[in-house]
Amino acid sequence: MAARTDERLMARAIELAQRGLLATAPNPCVGAVLAREGEIVAEGWHTAHGHPHAEREAIADARRKGVDTAACDLYVTLEPCNHHGRTPPCTEAVLEAGIRRVVVGCADPNPAVAGGGADFLRQRGVAVEMGVLERECRDLIADFTTWTLQKRAYCILKLAQTLDGRIASRSALPEAVSGPDSQCRVHELRRLCGAVVVGGGTLRADNPRLTCRLPEAERQPLAVVVTRSLPWPDEERFWLLMHRHRELIFWTSEEGADSDQGKALSASQVRVWPLPETGHGLDLRAGLSRLHSETGVHRALCEGGGRLAFALARQGVADELRVFVAPKVLGDARAVPSFQGDWAPAMNEALGFRFTGAETSGEDMMLTLRPRE
Amino acid sequence: MAARTDERLMARAIELAQRGLLATAPNPCVGAVLAREGEIVAEGWHTAHGHPHAEREAIADARRKGVDTAACDLYVTLEPCNHHGRTPPCTEAVLEAGIRRVVVGCADPNPAVAGGGADFLRQRGVAVEMGVLERECRDLIADFTTWTLQKRAYCILKLAQTLDGRIASRSALPEAVSGPDSQCRVHELRRLCGAVVVGGGTLRADNPRLTCRLPEAERQPLAVVVTRSLPWPDEERFWLLMHRHRELIFWTSEEGADSDQGKALSASQVRVWPLPETGHGLDLRAGLSRLHSETGVHRALCEGGGRLAFALARQGVADELRVFVAPKVLGDARAVPSFQGDWAPAMNEALGFRFTGAETSGEDMMLTLRPRE
Repeated sequence: MAARTDERLMARAIELAQRGLLATAPNPCVGAVLAREGEIVAEGWHTAHGHPHAEREAIADARRKGVDTAACDLYVTLEPCNHHGRTPPCTEAVLEAGIRRVVVGCADPNPAVAGGGADFLRQRGVAVEMGVLERECRDLIADFTTWTLQKRAYCILKLAQTLDGRIASRSALPEAVSGPDSQCRVHELRRLCGAVVVGGGTLRADNPRLTCRLPEAERQPLAVVVTRSLPWPDEERFWLLMHRHRELIFWTSEEGADSDQGKALSASQVRVWPLPETGHGLDLRAGLSRLHSETGVHRALCEGGGRLAFALARQGVADELRVFVAPKVLGDARAVPSFQGDWAPAMNEALGFRFTGAETSGEDMMLTLRPRE
Repeated sequence: MAARTDERLMARAIELAQRGLLATAPNPCVGAVLAREGEIVAEGWHTAHGHPHAEREAIADARRKGVDTAACDLYVTLEPCNHHGRTPPCTEAVLEAGIRRVVVGCADPNPAVAGGGADFLRQRGVAVEMGVLERECRDLIADFTTWTLQKRAYCILKLAQTLDGRIASRSALPEAVSGPDSQCRVHELRRLCGAVVVGGGTLRADNPRLTCRLPEAERQPLAVVVTRSLPWPDEERFWLLMHRHRELIFWTSEEGADSDQGKALSASQVRVWPLPETGHGLDLRAGLSRLHSETGVHRALCEGGGRLAFALARQGVADELRVFVAPKVLGDARAVPSFQGDWAPAMNEALGFRFTGAETSGEDMMLTLRPRE
């Protein structure tokens, strides 16, 4: 089969996988297609945790349609599992279906498991090809990889900035940077995430609610505020304290947690989590780990400001960047920058990412970036 | 014909038009296709000034292929001309070819001429539809519109910046921001332009050559430096003064031109052009006008720095922005910003553009913007 056909079919499997994005955690999103002579004859994806895996869904789809699976090639974004979990191993389903060729996007990210499914199939005479659209397939399950290997919440960093990299004018008043389409997409992101994280500057400047305002939102994300200077629990100017104090978590320093405000917050049922210090601010990785283990949050959406954004990037926990660029130029060196951090003496000390997408979002452009590998 | 078919065929005509980009000035780029029942049967574009217009090229292509033009619809990006220039009017060619339906992208930008071609054809029984992909077709000839209505060089503003809007670290040393693919594209832009314009800060920080280093470059662009503080003609540290002084033009203030340096430069055959003052710096529009009238330059490529970029945008003469965004974050509030200008008290005072494209350029993203309409 030509490489281009393999890539086309894998691209479709990736599309299918993404349908599971909201519901599969702690499992990864996986998509699969069955193809005969390069034409798709059946499709499947992992719809939700506890439900069948993508391979089984595609095989079931083929049977419903009366397709002979033994004449099909299987394309699957992630290596078929070879162990008994909540469902029996997919490798067995592949053998039962008589499939003779399996094309895999990427290996299981867990080094203890990687290659097991492919080896098992090969030993039983199935042709297995690995690594078609490998990077895209790995990006697709970057969240799962983070949960599995780092035992922490996956962090999506969202920014809305002008073309010249400003998130607010020097007044720092709450002003919309991006347009209504982008704001709607931000609420989509909030729906996807179990927690929204902001810095203390954003809390004070914007007094945000950090809720998802889409009607289809089933539950609201937790609100996390990162600040060394905690407020008093009765500070009425903060909407979060007045209306969402049970869903509110402060990430602060040891000193902050020990302060009178810290103790008062804890006494009024607001969670205050002291984080260790790193050379680059509070240990946000530790915060994401505790968020994952203690509240079960799989994805955290960080919405800035610039100091928190830079700290996440600097500490290597900005797993995915969504940058909404408005077609505007402020041209004011004292306006608020989108990333604010250390003194960077030279361009080659810049933090490196890679672009994985660019699409229009109303009048804005939404750029997606991920860490360099 | 369905609207979608019309747009598909016009999109092809736009593609064809772009092939003439380097050679048609002072004419616009125009593309045309002849279609039968929605299928393209002949194509043409304006290849160079003095050569036949796109409509005639498409009709000639049809005749070569033995296609009956009377059975075809004509799609053309710009309203057919109705006057005798270096070639006879295209409206007559359309009638001679027996074409019964003409689909036009946009009207002639010259209000004295606009609508004339369409009216002439309609009066002779030809169905004329105007405004298919109108904005794209107008953008295609934005350079021509500038030459025709504003009598000045069209200005492309190129920037290479980090994701957080920095064109250099605080050291302001010459350091590459974008990758090799983007740098190659910049040389393509230089090849397209009769002049490259930089600010005095860039002259002093980068000591640039401002040449096109592509082997296919037939001639080198003029070098324009905008600065109030002129150098002495024998300052050896400036490559441009040492090696390109006959292709070098300084845009400066009246005082600069009258200074000892200004007089010495003029005496050594370096052009020194005083520009009027505006409330936002030297009058760059006046510079672009003189560049057009005196040197015949059609396109000027401005390569920054930030003060010049902002001044062009502020004065409304940044006709097209090409922003190469490197997937890097500096996070230093004192690094050099891509646009540096006035005090902008609020976000709603930002200068507005619109995105017209985004494409990858190696590891970078190239964003294209144009002024709001």
